[in-house]
Amino acid sequence: MIVIMEVGATQSQVANVATHVQAMGLSAHIIEGQERTIVAVVGDERSEVDRDVLTALEGVERMMPVLAPYKIAGREVHPANTVIALGSLTLGEQKVMIAVGPRAVETREQYLTTAKQLQRLGVDALLGSLFGSRESPYVREGMGGDGLDVLVEAHNLTDLPVITEVDEPEGVAAAARFADVLLINGHSMQNYALLKAVGQSQHTAILKRGAFNTMEELLMAAEYILSYGNRRVVLCESGIRTSDAYTRNTTFDVNAVAVLKSKTHLPIVVDVGRAAGRTDLVAAIAGGAVAAGADGLLLEIEDDPDAAARPITERHRLNLAELEILLRTLKRIAGAVNRTL
Amino acid sequence: MIVIMEVGATQSQVANVATHVQAMGLSAHIIEGQERTIVAVVGDERSEVDRDVLTALEGVERMMPVLAPYKIAGREVHPANTVIALGSLTLGEQKVMIAVGPRAVETREQYLTTAKQLQRLGVDALLGSLFGSRESPYVREGMGGDGLDVLVEAHNLTDLPVITEVDEPEGVAAAARFADVLLINGHSMQNYALLKAVGQSQHTAILKRGAFNTMEELLMAAEYILSYGNRRVVLCESGIRTSDAYTRNTTFDVNAVAVLKSKTHLPIVVDVGRAAGRTDLVAAIAGGAVAAGADGLLLEIEDDPDAAARPITERHRLNLAELEILLRTLKRIAGAVNRTL
Amino acid sequence: MIVIMEVGATQSQVANVATHVQAMGLSAHIIEGQERTIVAVVGDERSEVDRDVLTALEGVERMMPVLAPYKIAGREVHPANTVIALGSLTLGEQKVMIAVGPRAVETREQYLTTAKQLQRLGVDALLGSLFGSRESPYVREGMGGDGLDVLVEAHNLTDLPVITEVDEPEGVAAAARFADVLLINGHSMQNYALLKAVGQSQHTAILKRGAFNTMEELLMAAEYILSYGNRRVVLCESGIRTSDAYTRNTTFDVNAVAVLKSKTHLPIVVDVGRAAGRTDLVAAIAGGAVAAGADGLLLEIEDDPDAAARPITERHRLNLAELEILLRTLKRIAGAVNRTL
Amino acid sequence: MIVIMEVGATQSQVANVATHVQAMGLSAHIIEGQERTIVAVVGDERSEVDRDVLTALEGVERMMPVLAPYKIAGREVHPANTVIALGSLTLGEQKVMIAVGPRAVETREQYLTTAKQLQRLGVDALLGSLFGSRESPYVREGMGGDGLDVLVEAHNLTDLPVITEVDEPEGVAAAARFADVLLINGHSMQNYALLKAVGQSQHTAILKRGAFNTMEELLMAAEYILSYGNRRVVLCESGIRTSDAYTRNTTFDVNAVAVLKSKTHLPIVVDVGRAAGRTDLVAAIAGGAVAAGADGLLLEIEDDPDAAARPITERHRLNLAELEILLRTLKRIAGAVNRTL
Repeated sequence: MIVIMEVGATQSQVANVATHVQAMGLSAHIIEGQERTIVAVVGDERSEVDRDVLTALEGVERMMPVLAPYKIAGREVHPANTVIALGSLTLGEQKVMIAVGPRAVETREQYLTTAKQLQRLGVDALLGSLFGSRESPYVREGMGGDGLDVLVEAHNLTDLPVITEVDEPEGVAAAARFADVLLINGHSMQNYALLKAVGQSQHTAILKRGAFNTMEELLMAAEYILSYGNRRVVLCESGIRTSDAYTRNTTFDVNAVAVLKSKTHLPIVVDVGRAAGRTDLVAAIAGGAVAAGADGLLLEIEDDPDAAARPITERHRLNLAELEILLRTLKRIAGAVNRTL
Repeated sequence: MIVIMEVGATQSQVANVATHVQAMGLSAHIIEGQERTIVAVVGDERSEVDRDVLTALEGVERMMPVLAPYKIAGREVHPANTVIALGSLTLGEQKVMIAVGPRAVETREQYLTTAKQLQRLGVDALLGSLFGSRESPYVREGMGGDGLDVLVEAHNLTDLPVITEVDEPEGVAAAARFADVLLINGHSMQNYALLKAVGQSQHTAILKRGAFNTMEELLMAAEYILSYGNRRVVLCESGIRTSDAYTRNTTFDVNAVAVLKSKTHLPIVVDVGRAAGRTDLVAAIAGGAVAAGADGLLLEIEDDPDAAARPITERHRLNLAELEILLRTLKRIAGAVNRTL
Repeated sequence: MIVIMEVGATQSQVANVATHVQAMGLSAHIIEGQERTIVAVVGDERSEVDRDVLTALEGVERMMPVLAPYKIAGREVHPANTVIALGSLTLGEQKVMIAVGPRAVETREQYLTTAKQLQRLGVDALLGSLFGSRESPYVREGMGGDGLDVLVEAHNLTDLPVITEVDEPEGVAAAARFADVLLINGHSMQNYALLKAVGQSQHTAILKRGAFNTMEELLMAAEYILSYGNRRVVLCESGIRTSDAYTRNTTFDVNAVAVLKSKTHLPIVVDVGRAAGRTDLVAAIAGGAVAAGADGLLLEIEDDPDAAARPITERHRLNLAELEILLRTLKRIAGAVNRTL
Repeated sequence: MIVIMEVGATQSQVANVATHVQAMGLSAHIIEGQERTIVAVVGDERSEVDRDVLTALEGVERMMPVLAPYKIAGREVHPANTVIALGSLTLGEQKVMIAVGPRAVETREQYLTTAKQLQRLGVDALLGSLFGSRESPYVREGMGGDGLDVLVEAHNLTDLPVITEVDEPEGVAAAARFADVLLINGHSMQNYALLKAVGQSQHTAILKRGAFNTMEELLMAAEYILSYGNRRVVLCESGIRTSDAYTRNTTFDVNAVAVLKSKTHLPIVVDVGRAAGRTDLVAAIAGGAVAAGADGLLLEIEDDPDAAARPITERHRLNLAELEILLRTLKRIAGAVNRTL
């Protein structure tokens, strides 16, 4: 931690800062610059209390932290990549995970058929959302809790790991019993009771960045889960919000993948989603994500056979044939950056 | 709902849209412009299903909703202001509610002393946060659930309504038994299980906008609570995130108060918070909020007597004497815009 | 400047940084922390060159500047407030400047009539925009360069200082001859040739922050003007862009006024503009600005007498009677925070 | 244009809107919904005047434009792609343009050597910035206007088109004489005098989106150039600003490429820049851009041979060998999406 003194701070104010620092059991190094004096504090700076006291001292202008506020999630303490075994895949190594599913599990038959088709295409994991979007109280999607059995059936049928979302602490135990991976959506990223329950579950979790949250907030949310002893945490980039009204104010933050990779040892995946049915956007986001070093992709597919038969312009999601073409493109992009698919 | 056809859409494509609209039990009005044709749909447009089908039809470029997606929260259906009785105050009328409390309830004695002092200053409600900030798993603030009794004592001692935060669905019943108003923080704004529990509780709730959420998202979150029959909902503006690194990337969105007032009949309050101990910012935000038509203010106070005795530059929050001066200033600002304090 | 070494940087890498620092004629202080080593550099850090070389050395993770990149604009070197005499007003002292004008100067007669009326209301300065908005190549507003004479007439008629915008370097000399203050709009904030011409003119200039620029960028743009020897620079806050689609994605950044006040000694004014004809927003922004410590306000008025006679709901701008009421309200708000109007 | 009436608007208010619409020579279609009435206006809606008058009528809540405000730049009127011959390349067809250069032209010898090397690598165009960054008045980069001759020499030596930036209207004529393409930087995107000069020059221009501007603002800026008869306009995506402090608050908006492609017929290129010397980011951005349909890439290279010999961790920009590897990767990515490099 660096304490920056005000211009014109007196020697006794500087000395007072040093005294407070030493009283906390830390050591202080005073450095006089041409315009300002700074005090470098050596010790564990991840305690908010110290900071409040020091900032409040006379002559202190502000503090500059040297260390990241997250400890277990950061590369500072754990430089080596975390890898997580998931089915036959090791997430965080050379192979890029491809996880695919419909927007929501609507019926048993439909989901099992889709699962079987996806298995044949060679995907690594199944997405099994039981609730879909919850943006409006007037729209219901998915089978809800009744669909948990279907997830087990899909797993047994395909031998693929199944990923399902958790939205509240009480749902964690059931989801962990019926599915292989828990997905925490962006709007739940700072649901601390949920993070605690997932942390205690020791189950593999994918934590999605909220459309409006910073990377540091994502890493602090991961730190919550990690701090309860669960080290099977995967970070997920999704759309970020921009000032632009097109495409619902969001874009994919391609830089974030590479920046997160340098900050944390946890695997990073990218939720490509439906990207508004635009195959051009899906390819762009997925391609950019793989090129940027993403360890996996989450993709949506149209599972209603009637809908899937309509022309691309009449659908929001890829159909099976389009997915197959996309995977072939992605395989070539992955190869171009020395990854496999 | 307006359906905008692509440039060059054919007559049969337009007719097909009209057919689909009529099949949904709605009526369609075709209007041919110089460059584009549009189809105006008359009926209840708050159903997502219709929109998905129509957008997907050939020749359709996009949809423009005419009605807001929230119904109970909007002024479209309920033009008159909602007013909520809270202690001796009627929130949503001429008097501006002043609710004050420390950052967190740390000890029984300290909180009761502060409550008594605030009562003498004439505030309308007490803030009683039992948890404080939860941004880091390494920082603990407040008494937690053990402090619920203290909230009741404070209420009995002062006869003032007490406001406390709820973070998870299971906490709602207890909080509703011990406190008068439930506060939903910004990071919980889209915790749908929590919104449901608060909706079912029928207890007065203050719903804070997340630092990164849009006003429409805030109104949709309110709609969740309202849709469970709880009409005692108050909206709360707090800081919004900007691209600027100063002041932790946030500013108070003064325009939002007036805009929300025009969109919804619910009362609007503003969380001024500690505003980093800068009395100039507290006065600016509070003054702007009152001038913009806010129905109430939430303010933080330094409750540790040792800390409160230090000079303003060494504190993050106002002390009692500074609060008294601020309230006098705000009373004059309120008077200037025909409100009372 | 603080150089932060990577975790695991070797002693020889640290020594190499120190050697490079000393070779630049600066001194280096090495501080070994528990997780990281830092090197504090003492000397003039406002030179980009040093930073590039140091960042590129092996073992260096990043640099943290201690000093602001602007020197003349900052309070670090010039702690006392800059005050600027403008007509009978001293900008930057207790009186809040009120500058008013129409959206654009449309005809000689109309503008002179408006100027006379504004003088009677007691405003401190006249806004005389000759071009209005330029957002679309298909919309023309204002008299353009032909109106320069009218500005002089308005000044002679009212004895009030006149403020007019400059958009290109070649326009600076003429504007400086015919008007008292040059206004640089937000979209010209980083037009460096214009900043240079204004800097060389030695004329009083108001520099508006772009809706999307940071405060640091505003201060660096001011530094350009100041570095050419022109010290008569006033900063102007206007709307900032948010992620919200209401109110054209902008809000007034009330915090910025107080934050800028602490960073710079230059006077700060606020462009309240037309705020979409909403008197509630005008009052909120103006009231918040005055409460936050703004040294002046720029306001728009409806100058077409036919339009001004229509009900408020049919206008975008205040009429004269409404302005008079607003000024009375603002006078009371200013009094509440110990300013005068 | 759709006029949305307030809830509760009277029949005579609706009729009044229709009368005003007809008085403008347009036709009005009244559609009564369940909650609101709307009036669809048929005619040329790109005139701001109409909108102001209509919005101001009693009973009108707001207007929803149906057509984009830009006409020449939009696909609505010109559906076919614009292609621009540039050297041996046709920009806007299958081949992706690769334009490379140093951060700034520092000396004649260095730039000519670099140009020769780039020619051997098979790039399509040379970047020749004479000024570099202008963010600080204390930092000077590049040869300035003295370097114009060098650009001609580089062109003659390599037979490659040369791209150079223009910052002010007076510089356009000289730049157009010495270089093949004019580059308008993001901070000049709304410099209307510059846009006019470039429009009148009839020279090929690349217009960069400001880090904080919306896509609509970019298209309106392009409309300025186009409206002066210059149809050789290329749009350029660069970083957009986010709320995140990492990577200097910017990210590449990969969605924007595909969205712009659907809105406009103009070619779109992407300024990958130096991306902070991180080859992972350069590859991610470039790969995503190509996958998204970009027609070209602008890349920076280290041209100082001493600097270029240092390890990658000690440089901000790629060296020649790394560029060669990147181009090979990009060729494979381009192939994966049916483009060539």
